[in-house]
Amino acid sequence: MPPPDESGEDRLIAKYFRPLATHAGAFGLGDDAAALAPPPGCDVVYKADAIIGTVHFLPDDPPDLIARKALRVNLSDLAAKGAQPFGFLLSLALPQGIGDEWLAAFSAGLREDAERYGCSLLGGDTDRTPGPIMIAIAAFGTLPHGTMVRRNGAKPGDLIVVTGTIGDAALGLKVRHNPDIGAQWKLDDGMRDHLVLRYRLPQPRTAAADAVRRHASGSMDISDGLAGDLAKLCRASGVIADIAVDRLPLSDAARRALAADPALIEAVLTGGDDYEIVATVPPAQLKALKTEAAAAGVAMSEIGAVIAGPAEARFVTTSGERLKFARPSFSHFD
Amino acid sequence: MPPPDESGEDRLIAKYFRPLATHAGAFGLGDDAAALAPPPGCDVVYKADAIIGTVHFLPDDPPDLIARKALRVNLSDLAAKGAQPFGFLLSLALPQGIGDEWLAAFSAGLREDAERYGCSLLGGDTDRTPGPIMIAIAAFGTLPHGTMVRRNGAKPGDLIVVTGTIGDAALGLKVRHNPDIGAQWKLDDGMRDHLVLRYRLPQPRTAAADAVRRHASGSMDISDGLAGDLAKLCRASGVIADIAVDRLPLSDAARRALAADPALIEAVLTGGDDYEIVATVPPAQLKALKTEAAAAGVAMSEIGAVIAGPAEARFVTTSGERLKFARPSFSHFD
Repeated sequence: MPPPDESGEDRLIAKYFRPLATHAGAFGLGDDAAALAPPPGCDVVYKADAIIGTVHFLPDDPPDLIARKALRVNLSDLAAKGAQPFGFLLSLALPQGIGDEWLAAFSAGLREDAERYGCSLLGGDTDRTPGPIMIAIAAFGTLPHGTMVRRNGAKPGDLIVVTGTIGDAALGLKVRHNPDIGAQWKLDDGMRDHLVLRYRLPQPRTAAADAVRRHASGSMDISDGLAGDLAKLCRASGVIADIAVDRLPLSDAARRALAADPALIEAVLTGGDDYEIVATVPPAQLKALKTEAAAAGVAMSEIGAVIAGPAEARFVTTSGERLKFARPSFSHFD
Repeated sequence: MPPPDESGEDRLIAKYFRPLATHAGAFGLGDDAAALAPPPGCDVVYKADAIIGTVHFLPDDPPDLIARKALRVNLSDLAAKGAQPFGFLLSLALPQGIGDEWLAAFSAGLREDAERYGCSLLGGDTDRTPGPIMIAIAAFGTLPHGTMVRRNGAKPGDLIVVTGTIGDAALGLKVRHNPDIGAQWKLDDGMRDHLVLRYRLPQPRTAAADAVRRHASGSMDISDGLAGDLAKLCRASGVIADIAVDRLPLSDAARRALAADPALIEAVLTGGDDYEIVATVPPAQLKALKTEAAAAGVAMSEIGAVIAGPAEARFVTTSGERLKFARPSFSHFD
């Protein structure tokens, strides 16, 4: 039984969120803040990204997947910067009507990933909102001082690599909005499920973070589409990225969808929600980067090269045609 | 002119928020994350608290004050824990129709306080929402390793102090909801404005943080009312707090309102939004705590004592009567 003066918010935190506060410096969420020292000689890497119902996820998405997506979009950034996660803060805004069942599933999903990625809940707050669910997470990682992999480190002569496969989540969102489209694309059930799950549940490449930190000259995660995000890296580095479209790593499902409708290449490259890493690497270090990432279970594909010139990302087909996009990058404010 | 592929979100960040990213480790918000090392031998203190339109502020509140309140509620926690702020992350969700004018005022207010409190913007994100404005801030401070002042450190025999004055914001909110009430309470215009400003713009006691860290045995900030928050400290410490109601520091405005309507003592003690510090201190250190806080410009008033017994906070009048509250602490989830 709770102490007589304990509030509903305190009970909610104790029941659903205290088990996620595994770091001693989180004080079991029983204080007003957490206090942690990074390992000696290390920086803390700071990242915040929020997701909002109807904007970043669909209201009927399972709460455990919503929770895991909210955490993973942040862990994806930390991984691309070369950092290992250790903790996160959670600000949760919940509409009336969100009750214990939803919270139990949400916190169970969050706990699963907090444990998987070695990331303790450090604190946060819960509020009622007249609007949609909003989950604002700030996530923290560490790496040796001064070694965060920047957007601005790409150099002419570097090679360009991406982790995993590109475009699945953008295609998965199309399938969710129109289930019939899977048949038009000649996808089997497994392929359709693969694409949808890639939209619902990002795979942050935390396992590749150390390899990226040791070998990449520039890096960022792909959240708004490879075309737009790589263009950002090119602007920060003042270089051109030359990408061979036929070398893009695609899942079997994406390959089949593209065969059925080649115009989907635009969605694949600009749709976003990939949560893969795009990195640049000096040629002498390509093998070590790919070998170390592969040993950690993360595939890395070489897709192009950095050349000198006015900043842009070019996507060139085998026939030498350069792809043009109507809207190169997802943005909430265009 | 922005580069051709730059998104609306990038332009918004560059225009309104880059000037707030004063720490070198924030990379001018030009990367995906910030990287900072705390001073050697120091912990980082982590805190997150969000505010939501219609819940924590009124939609017609001036944007600069909304911004400053969003940051200050977090800085208040850091101060009560004994930490000096150095940075924060901002996740901002904006309804359609919030445009440049609002953002210019919002970011100007935020910048003013970021500078005032030595607190660099480190990153974050902006999104459109179909709901109300939500401002989720995670703030970070530092202090020597292991010196964060906890809720659970109060000991029988300690004295209890609070900074500033209590109850102004709760009365200020009543004035905002019903402007006629100021006349009933016989407030002059200056008093009415004082109470409303105390609601709109918290005064985090950052200047007293070092004194609290050096001398307090237990401490927390008062955000949900002194009665409820002190009860939390008592539960964490396993002690009774005995408070002399006549020793509570009150502003002239609050004093006059209470003279007109003595029942307002409940709002004063349970209404919340004080953003003062309540701390416990061994008697031998009371003078040093008060002197150092006063030297930093923060008044500290002794209001009671810690005694052994089953955890609770007691508020006792000069006639020996113990106050009872219908609802001892504000909570969004009762």
